[in-house]
This record gives sequence, structure tokens and C-alpha cells, in this order.
Amino acid sequence: MDRVAIVGASMTQFGQREGWIRELLAEAGRDCLATAGIDGDDLEHLYVSNMASGEFEGQTGVANAVAHDLDALPAYTARIDQTSSSGGAGVHSAWQSVASGASDLTLLIGGEKMTHRSTAEATDVIASLTHPAEYKHGVTLPSFAGLTARRYLHEYDAPRESLAKVAVKNHKNGVDNPHAQFQKEVDLDTVMESPIVADPLRLYDFCPITDGSAALLMCPESVASEYADEYAVISGIGGATDTHVVHERADPTVMGGVVDSSTIAYEQAGLGPNDIDVAELHDMFTILEFLQSEGLGFFEQGEGWKAVEEGVTDRDGELPINTSGGLKSKGHPLGASGVAQVYEIYKQLTGTAGPRQVDAETGLACNVGGFGNCVITTIMEAGQ
Amino acid sequence: MDRVAIVGASMTQFGQREGWIRELLAEAGRDCLATAGIDGDDLEHLYVSNMASGEFEGQTGVANAVAHDLDALPAYTARIDQTSSSGGAGVHSAWQSVASGASDLTLLIGGEKMTHRSTAEATDVIASLTHPAEYKHGVTLPSFAGLTARRYLHEYDAPRESLAKVAVKNHKNGVDNPHAQFQKEVDLDTVMESPIVADPLRLYDFCPITDGSAALLMCPESVASEYADEYAVISGIGGATDTHVVHERADPTVMGGVVDSSTIAYEQAGLGPNDIDVAELHDMFTILEFLQSEGLGFFEQGEGWKAVEEGVTDRDGELPINTSGGLKSKGHPLGASGVAQVYEIYKQLTGTAGPRQVDAETGLACNVGGFGNCVITTIMEAGQ
Repeated sequence: MDRVAIVGASMTQFGQREGWIRELLAEAGRDCLATAGIDGDDLEHLYVSNMASGEFEGQTGVANAVAHDLDALPAYTARIDQTSSSGGAGVHSAWQSVASGASDLTLLIGGEKMTHRSTAEATDVIASLTHPAEYKHGVTLPSFAGLTARRYLHEYDAPRESLAKVAVKNHKNGVDNPHAQFQKEVDLDTVMESPIVADPLRLYDFCPITDGSAALLMCPESVASEYADEYAVISGIGGATDTHVVHERADPTVMGGVVDSSTIAYEQAGLGPNDIDVAELHDMFTILEFLQSEGLGFFEQGEGWKAVEEGVTDRDGELPINTSGGLKSKGHPLGASGVAQVYEIYKQLTGTAGPRQVDAETGLACNVGGFGNCVITTIMEAGQ
Repeated sequence: MDRVAIVGASMTQFGQREGWIRELLAEAGRDCLATAGIDGDDLEHLYVSNMASGEFEGQTGVANAVAHDLDALPAYTARIDQTSSSGGAGVHSAWQSVASGASDLTLLIGGEKMTHRSTAEATDVIASLTHPAEYKHGVTLPSFAGLTARRYLHEYDAPRESLAKVAVKNHKNGVDNPHAQFQKEVDLDTVMESPIVADPLRLYDFCPITDGSAALLMCPESVASEYADEYAVISGIGGATDTHVVHERADPTVMGGVVDSSTIAYEQAGLGPNDIDVAELHDMFTILEFLQSEGLGFFEQGEGWKAVEEGVTDRDGELPINTSGGLKSKGHPLGASGVAQVYEIYKQLTGTAGPRQVDAETGLACNVGGFGNCVITTIMEAGQ
């Protein structure tokens, strides 16, 4: 089967943005079409990944709205929602549309508009994805993160500072990402002394509330050169679900969805963890970067924190993680994040990452929905 | 390429239901798994088509919730939203998941829980899919339907009664559908004398607000016999978008999305309109049955009303339309409707439609999002 190529990519400025979700989506869409020099009506399929435009803005039907705004008619459109991994699910759907032969040219746009709502309101909308058995006790994703972080530090004798160093590293990377919400470094003391949110996690252990969008253009690899000189291919992609009730997990420090989704992706790509040159992980909370780096097989269980301490995951380390700045510094517009992760890997594999550029022929993006309730892992390689 | 087979199908009682959306979804899912004698953890992918669980119930993450309820872990899950055509978009996604080779066993469950909200509230949530340029003037889908019906009657010298006869026919069919919301006949006078909603359309020209769900199990045709003796195959499926701003359409009596989506589906199936033996159309409003039957090429433009007058689309006619009772009598739980249309065609093609059974080797389902903003047409054939 022909592999699926990514022949164009874009992301908007992430942060606090004016306007409606549809305007943000159209912005990334137009920029992405421009990178490949095509028009909206060249598209066969157009997917929008977005969690909650209805809940945040009272606006539904955003996929049709954007098809209109991009003059993409009569392209088939649909919205893909998989909570905070909507972007990864959008990548999965767009990939399937090309891999199935249904579309020879698919645009995916992921986006979310959130900052016009208070942090409490946004957190509450997101918490509505949890199981009612936990939700009714006041559980939110930050509270799960705090509980999990405490358990991890206890189980693996990890110092509290190792979590803070994830934030320090990713903020440092974000300085070189002109689209990041925060383009500024933070030092260890700032993280360690920031206000407690969900003990032991503090303000700087959390990603912000963000507006933004990102887009990808996909086609069969056999025709990729029609659209771009440099491109990337998706050589493996897998999605998997973990328990919806978080307390039912046998070991809260193991993300089953990461393990299962990456197993599918590695097998499809014919690659293993040691073959990956660069990765974007879903650091919605600092603790998640450890759990994912272990679940993906980059490091042994309970040793992800050591890699950060030792600089292995720094930009100039052996396995750079979150060269984009991650969700931590780049921001986390729910439906955009999984798309923006793949955007970063695309930039790295096509040698267009500017000051963030690392030496990479393969890359991996891991997008997490809920508190690991659903995970999509995408493995990419540089095109020929 | 191996065609995609439908090897199991179910639908719940449609109507006013107790419980949450996730319970309705799980009910159809369990019934569908049972028809094929498999367990949840046999699934590779699980899609949920649903427009607005967040807006209607404050519940998001329903795909993960249902994967949990069906013990389907670690199956990959996502929610597909394409407004009132979410069900058809779910069929499209589930089909792509198998056709791409990503999944060898996919369950799709479509559902919506609406009746706990008032008709005005539900209509307003649905209206949020329209373009802001029209929405701000108070436009709703029923108002578009009234305007379009008036134009159609004027353009094609159709009698008002022809619209009412769609309701009479579909209610008659619904009597034999034990899952239909209304299992009762209505006569022409009842329709013609019911309260005006959007002139010239009256109460009985509209589908009701409904709770319900429906499910389909799909696999490659090559392994279909492992799951079922009788099955159906999807031989063609296409989706297409029309203008998001309804007043921009050159001819309001032509549904461009129906024309474009069916063109794709017919070509893929190697069939034409004359080859179709039975069809389920999206009669959210009676006028839409005319427009679709013309857009699909069953009848010449402006002549769909004559077919109804002449009994061509009756259950014992030459081309039975909406043997299930249609959205009109069966009900219209947004995310379920497109799935339930395919369920009905599956029942007809596998000879299991009971008192509704017609003689059919091929069938077509046409699911409409918004006011034709997006349309998905699915063509099916009896399996061998």
C-alpha cells in the first residue's frame, strides 16, 4: 500500500487570540494550502479536529463553516472529537481517508478557542469527559495529575525537582518557537516556588489555556512530489483506549493507551523505540512526559525522570523531546495540540525547524486524550 | 481492494427514553455485538457518531465512556460529528477504518439524547450549525424548510398535498417498524390541518425530537462469513459539502451535496440510480424527500412529487423509499439517524426486515447534515 505523505503544514500563533474558532481554523487552513500552492477546491476531504466549539462558543457545524471559508466545496467534511487528543484522532482520520483510497488530497485542521472562558469554566468543560463515577466527586484532570505525580515520586524515588526540570526544558525550547504562547525561559526556582495547584504539582507543572490552530495536508506518497520538494511520511499510526475510570488502572504510573497505541505504530512502521530520533509528547502536566517516555519504551519504567535529569531529552541530547516547547510552553488548544505535534515533527524531518532544528530522520508524536483514556501515537519518517 | 461488509446491526427503541446518552449508546452497541456473537474486546476500532452530547447533557468523551461500558479496551475510539449527518459521517469513518486496513473489526454506534430538552432548546442547539450571517436573523432549519417548500411548490406546480403524502406514506411504513417513535398511521386531513410551523409546512411535515441509537459492525468482506451467514457490503460511499450560507445556492430546490455525494458513490459502486431497489432518505422535513429523490437521479428535477402522488415510492411501489418509516415516523436522534438508515438497508438486503421486507438486492441511504450543508450517500449490496 502506498504510504501517506504530509506535503504541507502550518500552525497559527498560539496564545490569547481574538475572533471565533472558525476564523482560527480558516487561518491555519489557508496557510497550509499556501505551503503547497493549492486552492481549497483542490481538496477531496477536509477534517476539523475540535473538542468543544459548541460548549465553548455555542457554535457547531464548524467543519462545514470552514469548508465554506476555504472555498473547499464540494470536499467532504467532518469534525473529529477525541477530547484532548482530538488532534491525534484527526491525524488518524485524515490518514485513513488517504490510506483507504477515499481521498487523494486531505486537509486536516485542528483548533480550539478557549481563552474567552475562565480557567475554571474551561477546566469544567474538560472535566465533563471523565467518568461520572469520578466526576461527581469533583475530579478534574489536574487533580488526577497531582495524585499520579505523588505516586510516581514515591514509587521510583524521583526527586520533585525532576518534574520541574521538564517545565524548565520545555520552556527553554519554546523560546525558539515563534508560534509558542510563552517564548520565555523559566528557572527551577520559579517552577518550584510557583503556587500549588494539585499537590505536589504547582502552576508551572501545567500547560496553559490556549487559543490556536494547526493544519496538515496529506496525499499518497506516490504523488507527494506534485505538492512539495520536501515531505514526511506517516509510516505507522495507532490509537488505543485505557480505562475510562482512572482508579481502575492496575498501576497508575503506567499509561496503557501509550503502550498499546505505540505497539501498533511501531509494528506498522517496522521500527522500535531506539529508532526514534525526536519526539513530541503530551506534557499537559509535567508528570505525563515521564509516563509517556516510559510507555513508549524510550526508557525503562520509573526511569523517565533520570533521562530529564541527565539531559538526554534536551534539544542537544540523545533523544530530544518537545523541541517545539511542548504543550507546556507552546500552549494547548485542545483540538489543535495533536496536529501541532505532527507539525513539529514534520518541520524537523523536512529540515525547516529553524533554530529548533535537530538531526532527525524519524520522529514520533504521542497525543493523549483525557487522562490517558485514549492515546494516538504517530511515527513519521523523512520522505525521499 | 477488499470491500467492506456489514456483518451485524442493531437499533434501540426510538422515542422518549430514560437515561444518559452513554447508556443509549451502550445498549445499541451490546445488541450489535450480540448479533455477531462477539465480545467488546474483539473490536479494533469503535466510533461514536453524535452531534451534541456536550450541549444537550454536559457530557463529553462519550466514545471513551462507551468503550469502557462495552469492555472494548484497548480498541481505538473517536467521536464523529457532522451535525444531523453525524451518523452518515460515522458510517464513512468506520468504512475508511476497514478499507484502509487500520481495523479488521469496527463497531460504529450513533446516538443522541434530546427529549429531556424542550423543542425550542433542541432547535436552538441545532440552529447553531448555521452560518452566523443567517443565524443572527433568527434562521432555524425549519424556517429554511418552509422557504424551500414554498419555492418548490411554485417552481414545479406541485400541489401542497404532495408534501403531506410523504408524511402519510412514511407514517404508514412506520407502523411495521417496532423501533419507530410513532407506530401509527396519519391521514391526509390530519397532516393538512395540523398547526402551521413554517408556512406552508405544518407540524406533520416535520420529524420529531427523539432519543435513540443504532449500531453497525464492519469487517473486510473476505472474513465476513466468520461473523454472519447473511451480510451486506458497502459498494460505494461518498460525502460532499454544499454552501454553508443557504441563500448563496443558485437554485434552492437543488441539493448540491446530494448530487455530488451520490456521484462519488455511484461511480465507486459501478451502479446508477436505476439500479437501486430501495432507499432511505433524510425526510427531516417532507420537502427534503422530494429534493433528495431528484438529486439522487431517481426522478427528474421537479418530478419527485409526482412519484409520491403515483405511489412509485410506496412500499409496494417500483422504488420503495423510507420503508423504515423515515425520520418522519421513526424519529431523528441526530447522531443515530444516518446509522439507522444503513441499518434499515442492511435489514432489507439480508431479508430480515419482517413485515417491512421488500424485494431488494441493492439499497441506498442518504443522510443530510444541516440544510444540505453536508451529505453522505451510501450504496449497499447484498453479500454473497
